[in-house]
Amino acid sequence: MNGPDFSKSDLIPVIAQDEASGDVLMLAYMNEEAYAETLKTGRVCYFSRSRSRLWRKGEESGNVQEVKSIYFDCDADTLLIKVNQIGGAACHEGYRSCFFRQLVPGQAEPRVVGERVFDPKEVYKQK
Amino acid sequence: MNGPDFSKSDLIPVIAQDEASGDVLMLAYMNEEAYAETLKTGRVCYFSRSRSRLWRKGEESGNVQEVKSIYFDCDADTLLIKVNQIGGAACHEGYRSCFFRQLVPGQAEPRVVGERVFDPKEVYKQK
Repeated sequence: MNGPDFSKSDLIPVIAQDEASGDVLMLAYMNEEAYAETLKTGRVCYFSRSRSRLWRKGEESGNVQEVKSIYFDCDADTLLIKVNQIGGAACHEGYRSCFFRQLVPGQAEPRVVGERVFDPKEVYKQK
Repeated sequence: MNGPDFSKSDLIPVIAQDEASGDVLMLAYMNEEAYAETLKTGRVCYFSRSRSRLWRKGEESGNVQEVKSIYFDCDADTLLIKVNQIGGAACHEGYRSCFFRQLVPGQAEPRVVGERVFDPKEVYKQK
């Protein structure tokens, strides 16, 4: 088989990794339709669980993810996609990576380790 | 909040990344108990969905994952753990990473890109 196995699950988790830096940017999900669109367009298209529809990453912010290479795991139920993150930020909070909070054992608050690239209020304007 | 939010889901996906190389090694799941054990022991403990029990990574193969740092994402429903992968291989098929197969568009078979570190037949002997 050459690709993920959607027969086990309608939605599979997808890890987006920055090709250049190796930073893990985010985790989201794809259904088979989102996967097919991603292959066809060369831009990452997820399936939004909260909105129950295709989520063309960057459709609002412009921060699309260009596909560089795609990998699937030993169980064929998870994808790893190396991307070129346009705009430099994957996270809707304006950080380069969604994983911008590091757990600090024994502390009440996490440490913010990520770089804030944009101000969400400027990018996602009220309509 | 300082950590993942298990109130939204009993199981959350966990990305294990090699701290030294930046390679994404695998994706598995934790429930709250597995997460607590991981924090306590400093070794990654997942929850196996197929076996419905705690899965102390490396319990059979010896290839444990030492926790170096832990991050959680903007929705607090995914973890990223940077690890030191003992034995050099995370995948039960003997590869360094579970993502050892690269999709090759238009080809019937994927390209094997990973490095095989051990022979599974030697490590997981029949009991």
